[in-house]
Amino acid sequence: MDLKEHIRSVKDFPKPGIMFRDITTLLENPAALKHAAELMYENVKNLGITKVAGIESRGFIIGGILADKLNAGFVMIRKPGKLPSKKFAASYELEYGTDSIEMHTDSIKPGDLVLLHDDLLATGGTARAAIKLIENAGGKVVSGQFLVELTFLPGRKNLEGYNIDTIVQYHDEN
Amino acid sequence: MDLKEHIRSVKDFPKPGIMFRDITTLLENPAALKHAAELMYENVKNLGITKVAGIESRGFIIGGILADKLNAGFVMIRKPGKLPSKKFAASYELEYGTDSIEMHTDSIKPGDLVLLHDDLLATGGTARAAIKLIENAGGKVVSGQFLVELTFLPGRKNLEGYNIDTIVQYHDEN
Repeated sequence: MDLKEHIRSVKDFPKPGIMFRDITTLLENPAALKHAAELMYENVKNLGITKVAGIESRGFIIGGILADKLNAGFVMIRKPGKLPSKKFAASYELEYGTDSIEMHTDSIKPGDLVLLHDDLLATGGTARAAIKLIENAGGKVVSGQFLVELTFLPGRKNLEGYNIDTIVQYHDEN
Repeated sequence: MDLKEHIRSVKDFPKPGIMFRDITTLLENPAALKHAAELMYENVKNLGITKVAGIESRGFIIGGILADKLNAGFVMIRKPGKLPSKKFAASYELEYGTDSIEMHTDSIKPGDLVLLHDDLLATGGTARAAIKLIENAGGKVVSGQFLVELTFLPGRKNLEGYNIDTIVQYHDEN
C-alpha cells in the first residue's frame, strides 16, 4: 500500500507558498490508518516502551493507537494553558518569534522508556522541545515515530543522536 | 477496575469554582487506558461503524484507538481554522458568547455509520454541534461514547434520541 496516495496536498495553506500535506484523508481510510500505525508499531515493538508521548493535537491520534498496541501509557504534550496540574514548559523557535509546549511533571517517571510521536517532522523544533520535556522528567526517548517527513527541512539533523523513523517522505514542496 | 480512581480532580481549573476532571492520569496508566477503550469498544462493536469522529483534542486519543479496533476511519472535528480543505462549520453556545467547530465536507459520506467520541459530556453543546456536522455530510450517528459524564449538567438531555454511553460519571462538583 502506497500511503502517500492517501495524503492530500493543499496549496497555500496555512499561508501562500506553503504546500500543506493533509493527513486527514489518510486517517479517514481504515486500511491506510491501520497500515500506518502497524508500520510504526513494528519499528518499536521490541524496545520495552512504557510511555507514548504525543504532541497536540494530530499527534494524539496514532499516538493513542500506538500506546494501546504497545500496552503503554499515553502522555499528552500540549499547547500552553491546557494542562491543569504542575507542569514543565519548553519553548521552540518559529519563523517569527517563539512558541511553547507543556507536559505535566508527573507524566513521565525516571526510568520510563518513551516513544515520541507526531504526525509531521519538519524543522524538528517542536520535537526537540518535547524531548527536553521528557528528559527533564527523567524519561529516556528511545524512538521518535513520525508519519510524514519533509526531508528538505532540517528536522532529522536537529534530532541527531535519536532513533527517528518516518513513514512517508516529501523531498520538495511540489 | 475502578477507572474513577485514575482520574485526578483539580480545583479551580480553568477558573475559580470549577472542579476539573483531569483524565491525563488515566491515559498515562496502561491498564486504565486499555480498559476504558475496551469498554467503549464492547458498547459499539456490533453496530457496523464505518467512521469514528473525535472532537479536538482530547477526543483524538481514545477516538483513534476505537477507529483502529473497529477497522473504521478516523475523522477529526477541529477548532476553527485548522482544517485545510473545504469544510462545514457549526457553532455552539458557551457561558458567554459562542464558539464553533469544523469538519471537512468529504470526511463523512452518505451512508457512513458514525461513532462520535469525546472525553467529556458536560452540557452537550459541542457534541450537538458535532452531530450537526456529521448529519450535514449525510452520516448517521449510531453512538456517542464519552469517557466522563457530568450528570448534573444537561448533556444527556441535549442529546436525546441518540444512543449515548459514558464510562465514568460525576454527580456533583465535589
